[in-house]
Amino acid sequence: MARKTVEDLFIHELSDVYSAEKQIAKALPRLARAATNPLLAEAFRSHLEETHAQIERIDQLVDAEGLKLKRMKCVAMEGLVEESKELLEEIEKGAVLDAGLIGASQKVEHYEIASYGTLIAMAKTLGLKTAAKLLAETLQEEKAADETLSAIAQQGGNQAATLEK
Amino acid sequence: MARKTVEDLFIHELSDVYSAEKQIAKALPRLARAATNPLLAEAFRSHLEETHAQIERIDQLVDAEGLKLKRMKCVAMEGLVEESKELLEEIEKGAVLDAGLIGASQKVEHYEIASYGTLIAMAKTLGLKTAAKLLAETLQEEKAADETLSAIAQQGGNQAATLEK
Repeated sequence: MARKTVEDLFIHELSDVYSAEKQIAKALPRLARAATNPLLAEAFRSHLEETHAQIERIDQLVDAEGLKLKRMKCVAMEGLVEESKELLEEIEKGAVLDAGLIGASQKVEHYEIASYGTLIAMAKTLGLKTAAKLLAETLQEEKAADETLSAIAQQGGNQAATLEK
Repeated sequence: MARKTVEDLFIHELSDVYSAEKQIAKALPRLARAATNPLLAEAFRSHLEETHAQIERIDQLVDAEGLKLKRMKCVAMEGLVEESKELLEEIEKGAVLDAGLIGASQKVEHYEIASYGTLIAMAKTLGLKTAAKLLAETLQEEKAADETLSAIAQQGGNQAATLEK
């Protein structure tokens, strides 16, 4: 595909993050089951609901702006999800696995934060106001999810350190 | 490898980001040459110098804390760097390529922001004070690099929008 205009870039990036969100939605239930800290399990479950709403939000903005997404698979997200799967295979349930899953999930969140940030900038460039507004809602949710994970990491990290002593 | 303790996780994550930084250092000169906006070319060049210093900082903290890194390749960064290469192949030099490269580079920055954030939390858990301090310096640089890119995107995006009219 040729990406010659900012609109082409926008469609490519939006299709990429659409694929990323679908992969995340698929991975989250397993992460929720693997988490030991109930706060972390709850964070994964509540982010799953949010992710479904974010996917719908993309559908909504595509309709509103008369765009057409491309079928593609976000390869970067495939790698990031794979990282979580490796942790599940290598580490027993407990505080250490929780710490690993939080780290891997924060990489996922930051991929999305960067992606939505770029999309909002491009939407503004293109004058796609509805898209910019809806994408900004999602960006705020991703930032909040990242902060929740940081808070849980701090609490859980202290717990893991104590257990190892 | 078995990651059973927070220290194992820390070593794994540090080895991962060490590989990521080396891949970034290798990619940046080409990105600097491909950028049209002189501010963007300069941002890539100055981040290259920073990246070299960040690699040295990891060497320094590994020595200071008596750690041993694992030889590994950060597969996620391989995917992110690949994304930039695809842009270089598909888009002619100009404002649109610049916008694409900024987006791809912000994903790289956010991968690092998430990774260093996790590493700092783990270093604190483990009582590795020198490591936590050095990693925090790098985290600040990565956040600043991301903000610089956002500022250039805003200025360049407006330019691209004007050119397309």
